[in-house]
Amino acid sequence: MVEYDAVIVGAGILGLSTAHHLKNRYGNAQVLVVDKLNAAGQANTAKSAGAFRCLFHSRTNFALADSSAEFHRHLQDDLGVNLKLRWTGYLWLFDEEGYKQMQPVLKDLAGKSFECKEYDRSELAEKLSIQTNFNGDEEAQLMGLASVHKGVFIPKAGLIDVDSLVKFYESEFLKLGGKIQYGTEVKNIVVEPREPLGVPGEPFFWQDSRAVGVDTNRGMIRAKKTIVAAGAWVPLLLDPLGVECHVKAKKRQIFSVKAKTDTLKKLLWTKGFSPVGCLPFTILPKPSIYFRPALEEDAFWLSYGDEFPRAFQVEENPQPEEKFYQYGIYQVLAKYFPQFKDCQPFSSFAGLYAINTLDGQPVIFEENDLMVVGGASGSGIMKADAIGRIAAALYSGEEYAVLYGDRKFKVSDLSLKNRNVEPEKLVI
Amino acid sequence: MVEYDAVIVGAGILGLSTAHHLKNRYGNAQVLVVDKLNAAGQANTAKSAGAFRCLFHSRTNFALADSSAEFHRHLQDDLGVNLKLRWTGYLWLFDEEGYKQMQPVLKDLAGKSFECKEYDRSELAEKLSIQTNFNGDEEAQLMGLASVHKGVFIPKAGLIDVDSLVKFYESEFLKLGGKIQYGTEVKNIVVEPREPLGVPGEPFFWQDSRAVGVDTNRGMIRAKKTIVAAGAWVPLLLDPLGVECHVKAKKRQIFSVKAKTDTLKKLLWTKGFSPVGCLPFTILPKPSIYFRPALEEDAFWLSYGDEFPRAFQVEENPQPEEKFYQYGIYQVLAKYFPQFKDCQPFSSFAGLYAINTLDGQPVIFEENDLMVVGGASGSGIMKADAIGRIAAALYSGEEYAVLYGDRKFKVSDLSLKNRNVEPEKLVI
Repeated sequence: MVEYDAVIVGAGILGLSTAHHLKNRYGNAQVLVVDKLNAAGQANTAKSAGAFRCLFHSRTNFALADSSAEFHRHLQDDLGVNLKLRWTGYLWLFDEEGYKQMQPVLKDLAGKSFECKEYDRSELAEKLSIQTNFNGDEEAQLMGLASVHKGVFIPKAGLIDVDSLVKFYESEFLKLGGKIQYGTEVKNIVVEPREPLGVPGEPFFWQDSRAVGVDTNRGMIRAKKTIVAAGAWVPLLLDPLGVECHVKAKKRQIFSVKAKTDTLKKLLWTKGFSPVGCLPFTILPKPSIYFRPALEEDAFWLSYGDEFPRAFQVEENPQPEEKFYQYGIYQVLAKYFPQFKDCQPFSSFAGLYAINTLDGQPVIFEENDLMVVGGASGSGIMKADAIGRIAAALYSGEEYAVLYGDRKFKVSDLSLKNRNVEPEKLVI
Repeated sequence: MVEYDAVIVGAGILGLSTAHHLKNRYGNAQVLVVDKLNAAGQANTAKSAGAFRCLFHSRTNFALADSSAEFHRHLQDDLGVNLKLRWTGYLWLFDEEGYKQMQPVLKDLAGKSFECKEYDRSELAEKLSIQTNFNGDEEAQLMGLASVHKGVFIPKAGLIDVDSLVKFYESEFLKLGGKIQYGTEVKNIVVEPREPLGVPGEPFFWQDSRAVGVDTNRGMIRAKKTIVAAGAWVPLLLDPLGVECHVKAKKRQIFSVKAKTDTLKKLLWTKGFSPVGCLPFTILPKPSIYFRPALEEDAFWLSYGDEFPRAFQVEENPQPEEKFYQYGIYQVLAKYFPQFKDCQPFSSFAGLYAINTLDGQPVIFEENDLMVVGGASGSGIMKADAIGRIAAALYSGEEYAVLYGDRKFKVSDLSLKNRNVEPEKLVI
């Protein structure tokens, strides 16, 4: 039987970025990517909101996101790879309380010369026709909505076409001689003793064991390293081996609403924030519903990452819930942006976040020849390039990865045993 | 519908200790314990090895275990509650490497005037007829077994009858007016908005929600606080609400071997370690198989907590595996203790550890009127009293719990948000 140097489980954005960077470093390595679906990036990667930002407070998040965004810029501007990057910026809307809490963080960031711009409520009202004041609106108060106090605009942020990024990594990996086998579902990771005795029932617990590949619907695949980059499915593959990755799956839903009316068209093409001349990726104060322009669709994508009591659950085919829009997002959004009154989504989709419940930042570690790359917690697209480089460095046994732009990143900082990440203070 | 002050899910040792201490502090509180089984402590509590030790290196573990053991001593010696406490001690066997690694920890503990006694290999060989040297034993070397270098004996440790402890908490709780409803299986925790609007589909995500009780096979039970102390089942109740507890279940197996032969009887009744005049709870160097005397059965209980690749898995009725004894425990044990040659277990049982995969120490926290008490990671019996007191303090909203012996313990130290536990360096 062929033994690959590495088999990578999952042709989502993390698996492909890892595959590409690994093969890029080791031209001779036999690397195979397997995925149960029939094409790249068709599972939760395809369900992303396709947004990115470079402004994070945590050193870790900033390093991952900023270097990845710079790589994307390089691809598009220098190499002519069209990722449909649009630097629309992010617009964070705060109530008075939220703004007060965020002040020290923003001051701190300003001191590090991060670029951002503040807007007061009257400017926001004028630019966006947003309802900033809920005094006297009993319904809004019953719903716990907060009046808008300030807006903070971050220019180094925007939108990216996820499918184009997926295709870039896939084609580069294939060009380098990597192999991908679609329609291949991994049933389980295979473990054998390092020094087999040839006795039935191995491995026994007094033997030193390691992952030797994967069992799939198309037979076993042997590999020196088994790299699990299966997003929300990672824990389903690791639990049977008693390997903890601290990842749980949670549904995310995105609803697309057409900019049919003049007021919505005006909102979609809001001028004055970024050179793109459209609405930034915008986050409401409370609850933090977010929405982005989807210019090709002449639409807005609306979403909300609900917490308690939204279940942790791995679903094969998660569905958007009509009620989530109707009684959730719509009720809130239409209060802040009356332009959306009576608007129904024309399409919607749902995917799964792979949330790292420790700190919301990725996990990249290895034990017993089993590597895990996951837990990107909803920011996999915007960090994928850095994550792939760190995974490739871990594969090589190097202490530091070199991210795009020659930035060094300590590989063990994203491990579990020697994890060293700063908690993020700029959370959506 | 009746609304209890607290409903406690699980009549295992943690649920009952919590129930007792809660009711002890709040005589007027209406407290109900529910359990799917028909009596107290019948699930994994009953599958414990029934051993305890007070020597831990971590401040947290020591506080929990030592205060609980002192409470048990008080119950038995001062109040005449027969818990069949036996201070047999623990005997840790180390190979040269393991002993070297443990030296700084032992020195540190000696400096804090913890009592322990060292035995060298010749003393151990004489007292226990243990095989201490595997030089020239090819099979042992193939198995990776390590020669015994030293033994460290810890006197403040021993055995306890789990069922007697369970019955103590149960009967005290009932005497204080607490209620227990057996045969009541919790299907899910019920969540409602704090300020219901009476609209179908609530709670919506913009509402502030809380746990209001549990749905069971015998109908809904409402409570101001829902306290989940369901051991290995805790994550199955919390995942549907998106509440992370960092607990995973893992099978543990115990095999009972009769002391049939003279050499085994001699081993069982080994003199000179403790006043009990029997073998201490003993831990082998590598792999760390442990075994204890089961004097009432004229037997030894043998066990091993296997790691990779033992699955994390919640099973309704976990079974001991013949192969685990035959090719696992037996092969190792009979090398160190030839007295066990050809011995078969006369009985065996399996249960589930509820492992906290963060740090192996318990979790006690509350959010949205949902309290979680669990993750004792195989030392639930020996820490249950302290855990119950801390849970009762959390229920009261107090900053500090007072453990038995008037020791203060900061309640938030075992929470998730402000967790503050020292990692344990003395791990079996």
